[in-house]
Amino acid sequence: MLVLHNYWRSSASYRVRIGLALKGLPFEAQAVHLVRGGGEQHSADYRRLNPEGRVPALVDDGRVLTQSLAILEYLEETHPEPALLPRDPAGRARVRSLAQVIACDIQPLQNTSTTLYLRDRLGLAPERIAEWLAHWIGRGLASLEAQLGRGGAPDGPYAHGDRPGLADCCIVPQLYAARRFGVDVAPYPRAVSIDAACGSLDAFQRAAPEVQPDAE
Amino acid sequence: MLVLHNYWRSSASYRVRIGLALKGLPFEAQAVHLVRGGGEQHSADYRRLNPEGRVPALVDDGRVLTQSLAILEYLEETHPEPALLPRDPAGRARVRSLAQVIACDIQPLQNTSTTLYLRDRLGLAPERIAEWLAHWIGRGLASLEAQLGRGGAPDGPYAHGDRPGLADCCIVPQLYAARRFGVDVAPYPRAVSIDAACGSLDAFQRAAPEVQPDAE
Repeated sequence: MLVLHNYWRSSASYRVRIGLALKGLPFEAQAVHLVRGGGEQHSADYRRLNPEGRVPALVDDGRVLTQSLAILEYLEETHPEPALLPRDPAGRARVRSLAQVIACDIQPLQNTSTTLYLRDRLGLAPERIAEWLAHWIGRGLASLEAQLGRGGAPDGPYAHGDRPGLADCCIVPQLYAARRFGVDVAPYPRAVSIDAACGSLDAFQRAAPEVQPDAE
Repeated sequence: MLVLHNYWRSSASYRVRIGLALKGLPFEAQAVHLVRGGGEQHSADYRRLNPEGRVPALVDDGRVLTQSLAILEYLEETHPEPALLPRDPAGRARVRSLAQVIACDIQPLQNTSTTLYLRDRLGLAPERIAEWLAHWIGRGLASLEAQLGRGGAPDGPYAHGDRPGLADCCIVPQLYAARRFGVDVAPYPRAVSIDAACGSLDAFQRAAPEVQPDAE
């Protein structure tokens, strides 16, 4: 049985929940509260599992896997169908690049550890933190939107054609986070449309933050 | 011919230069100066090539590839030998996770666009920016060091055994950046040792920032 250590509202956790659901893989969810008591991810117990002190971590038969995109690639290699990546190298590069715009260029700047630093160590007021979030999320979503609009992708309602995949696993949590932080997503209609298409699928509905057992 | 749009001192550019050199792939380097004139990566010409306004971008026969890890995976799929990833899914997940600790958890918080925001929009003094860099680089390198020390990896001087690969393509530029920003790397002896082993190889020497045509 797969065990996913995760937090309902963490973007990176949400990505992996979607991937597991798309592949139809059952898993046991273990909640790691990122804020309570200074963050359970920093506890000695959790750090023995994942020394990074971050979520998610997926345990597969005693093997601990970390970093959401590495976990999704592992699931792709160990459970190839349904595929999260296209077959052609150029298509795979496009999908991975879309995922990485989110995972490398947006999420690290919006996540809890970063905004806590802004608040507690730099003493930033909430409105300056909101500006920070709007800046990086807006810049990243503009990049994403431009990349989505470039030629070379097959037609379909998802990020890369008519089946949801790795990029969609990242886009949906990113739009969730943008809305949560009060960022207007209307300037990014392609991303919004993909998010809506995904939202009608059972796999994405089951992975949504608000239906997780640890949701508040 | 492959064309790499890059900047000598950019970590992400450096990763791709190492990957190209390890695979023995010749390329034409096009310099994109990230600071001069507000940053050439924001120019209309460059944004037509890469709407993200970031480096690197690799052009392969007219196809534009972006995001350093997606580019390295593309090179791996189109030029499989010598391999940058091990063959087994668990090993591949380990290597990708090491790469992503750097690409997702450290580099976005140290890069030029982020430190310019700290300086110009938040008005942070140089010593507060240095604290920021030390915090995130230190935290990330501690995670990396802990992950490197976990069991399951084959013996050898590199991040995953006796051949350099995807993780090494990220570790070497990250240690270069840490030293550049005045962060003490002595607490991370595994990473330092890997960096030293890589530094003796021709591929890493040819990819180094200071020997690039645009180095200052």
